[in-house]
Amino acid sequence: MVSIAELPKHVGEKVQLQGWLYNRRSSKKLQFLLVRDGSAMVQGVLVKDEVAESLWDLVDGLTQESAIRVEGEVREDARSPGGVELGVTGVEVISGSPDYPISLKSHGPEFLLDHRHLWLRSKRPQAVLKVRDEVTFGIRDWLHKEGFINVDSPIFTPNACEGTTTLFETEYFGSQAFLTQSGQLYNEASAMAFGKVFCFGPTFRAEKSKTRRHLTEFWMVEPEVAFMGLDDLMTLIENFVGALVARVLENCAEELKVLERDTAPLERAVPPFPRLSYPDAAEILRGGDTGFEDGGDFGSPDETELSSRYDRPLLVHRFPSAIKAFYMKEDPADPKLSLSVDLLAPEGYGEIVGGGQREESLEVIERKIKEHDLPKEAFEWYLDLRRYGSVPHSGFGMGIERAVSWICGLGHLREAIPFPRMIHRLSP
Amino acid sequence: MVSIAELPKHVGEKVQLQGWLYNRRSSKKLQFLLVRDGSAMVQGVLVKDEVAESLWDLVDGLTQESAIRVEGEVREDARSPGGVELGVTGVEVISGSPDYPISLKSHGPEFLLDHRHLWLRSKRPQAVLKVRDEVTFGIRDWLHKEGFINVDSPIFTPNACEGTTTLFETEYFGSQAFLTQSGQLYNEASAMAFGKVFCFGPTFRAEKSKTRRHLTEFWMVEPEVAFMGLDDLMTLIENFVGALVARVLENCAEELKVLERDTAPLERAVPPFPRLSYPDAAEILRGGDTGFEDGGDFGSPDETELSSRYDRPLLVHRFPSAIKAFYMKEDPADPKLSLSVDLLAPEGYGEIVGGGQREESLEVIERKIKEHDLPKEAFEWYLDLRRYGSVPHSGFGMGIERAVSWICGLGHLREAIPFPRMIHRLSP
Repeated sequence: MVSIAELPKHVGEKVQLQGWLYNRRSSKKLQFLLVRDGSAMVQGVLVKDEVAESLWDLVDGLTQESAIRVEGEVREDARSPGGVELGVTGVEVISGSPDYPISLKSHGPEFLLDHRHLWLRSKRPQAVLKVRDEVTFGIRDWLHKEGFINVDSPIFTPNACEGTTTLFETEYFGSQAFLTQSGQLYNEASAMAFGKVFCFGPTFRAEKSKTRRHLTEFWMVEPEVAFMGLDDLMTLIENFVGALVARVLENCAEELKVLERDTAPLERAVPPFPRLSYPDAAEILRGGDTGFEDGGDFGSPDETELSSRYDRPLLVHRFPSAIKAFYMKEDPADPKLSLSVDLLAPEGYGEIVGGGQREESLEVIERKIKEHDLPKEAFEWYLDLRRYGSVPHSGFGMGIERAVSWICGLGHLREAIPFPRMIHRLSP
Repeated sequence: MVSIAELPKHVGEKVQLQGWLYNRRSSKKLQFLLVRDGSAMVQGVLVKDEVAESLWDLVDGLTQESAIRVEGEVREDARSPGGVELGVTGVEVISGSPDYPISLKSHGPEFLLDHRHLWLRSKRPQAVLKVRDEVTFGIRDWLHKEGFINVDSPIFTPNACEGTTTLFETEYFGSQAFLTQSGQLYNEASAMAFGKVFCFGPTFRAEKSKTRRHLTEFWMVEPEVAFMGLDDLMTLIENFVGALVARVLENCAEELKVLERDTAPLERAVPPFPRLSYPDAAEILRGGDTGFEDGGDFGSPDETELSSRYDRPLLVHRFPSAIKAFYMKEDPADPKLSLSVDLLAPEGYGEIVGGGQREESLEVIERKIKEHDLPKEAFEWYLDLRRYGSVPHSGFGMGIERAVSWICGLGHLREAIPFPRMIHRLSP
């Protein structure tokens, strides 16, 4: 038994493979079977005059997604994907698939999402999720080569530190626990222990918004580095994103073709990326028609307007301190600004990375906790990181589904995760 | 600025590094600084007669975990870890660390767990979590090389499919969601789409037991393979575990030494592993003093008794169907038995892998759902996998903390995860 991906190594040989019938076309004299086994797809050909009538009839009755064992001769065929086709000499049915609900014609998104467990077998989700796999493994591979170690932060957290409105909550043996929205605070403890760390896991947000940019459950990678300032962080982010995109371009050319992704914008995502300060960005947006409010966070139209001015991803740095979390370090040159940075993907995909330098002074961070009206007790352990050998440090988070959506050119995050969870979707 | 791990490349050079003071010893004429930066540790030496008095005095006042910048000359020193030491010529204090709570003497486990955010800086947790990093990355690396793709299963699930007693629950926009205990059912859908898949994420169990073998939040890798039966699954498991252990032995020799791990049992974990059927295991246990109940699951003493008879991990297969989940395939040779398998680690570590062949017949699995008194509606999507191109398939799950505990020789799972969560522990 060989896998379809290995067929090019077996040209001229008779082989057996097993998989599912993806599609079948037939004329009076020929039948074409498209067979998939997860590793790849291959076209099998039957010529009526050359095969037994029983085989011809059996194949003629096969429906989409039947599980089959196929025997045949591997032939070179330059026009086929993988460069080979199969001259079919035998077919055995493992199990049938009557009335398979997903035809190769188009279906509405709700129908497809209701059948996500089957939809995964179709070409487009296969391509997207293979890119996702390349991205997630590429992230780990790159970070390890750069000397990072994976230190996972907990999912259950004891305090609703930054407001409860978007937190999921669970009963925890008589008390309450909240599902993490970010591993960052824990990451800071890990960075003081291991220097360069990352956590990478699911995070949760009880988003009531039903936009194409929101999931309730999404995966995030968060690197954190001791002794790193904002400038070096921006270099880290651009090298990280640049390397990931380059890796996908190299290893997923076939998948990007299936997705009809214009790869030109990806090929331009080569560091260094342009860097724009928030004040300069505000200068551009002020008086425009994006609805930008001075001193406020960017809306989607603001992000699109800004990134349309550049040919590659854009680093926007130094957002106002007032709109950033308490742990974000103030810019010594202007404390109204923070040493924060967002990476905006081109083509209207908006923010895919957010990060910054963290405040390392105990005194300042105690003041910020008070200003943000947060319960200090909950942060005692976090303050310990400033009491014992505090050093400058920085980090960022990248949402996996947002990155995959941009790289694949998707219209909605829900396609970028195997089993999406949204306000009105908790199944299958 | 160089990292401590890179020092061997700089012998004879003057370098600057930054990190934290792990320990300091001094006599009248000499001071020894042990400095860590997350990448490694190095010993710095000051000779009183050779340095300025101000430098001597500054170093003399440094406390554990002070953040410092150190300048010095890299010298070969065969006795030191990494083979180098540093002739210190300058020290600059980045920030102090008065009254650091964790001394190098011993502390009780509760105290250390309460200070986990700082305890991570100590040698032992550093070693364990570096092994964990090697294990988790090694898993992904090995599976990718074997042609698996990572398809993550969801954390939020709509139904309490196998009883609610150990499930965590959360309000989900007016309805209920449960936190996953296993990605397996979803994995089966993914395997029918991609052939060879794995999910790898946190799983949750509201365990009220307070044993050293239980966490409420733990990580699990779950590979699943289409067209695979039990025998090939056992081969997959032994190759997987064997490769992981070999990788750790190769890349984490230093860490295992810190942990004083006897590596002999690890070196013997070379496939093939012995295979023992449940009936044969029961034959051994029957009449012994482990408290074994015929037909029941193994307790910890049973596992220890069985594995003590072999020199490497043990595969026990064909547990009674009655004690296994509804989706486990019955043995065609004896339907009272299931095509299931556990891997028992040696030295009393017990089960670290559990898996089996899944039932692929729609008719049988519908009957099993009825017998297990489960709500059929909740499984309609899962039954679709048997309606459309059903094929034999198998998979397993390995608990990361259990595997790391065995490899590191730990007494409790809580040390094998950065921030452990147990019935009485939800912080820091």
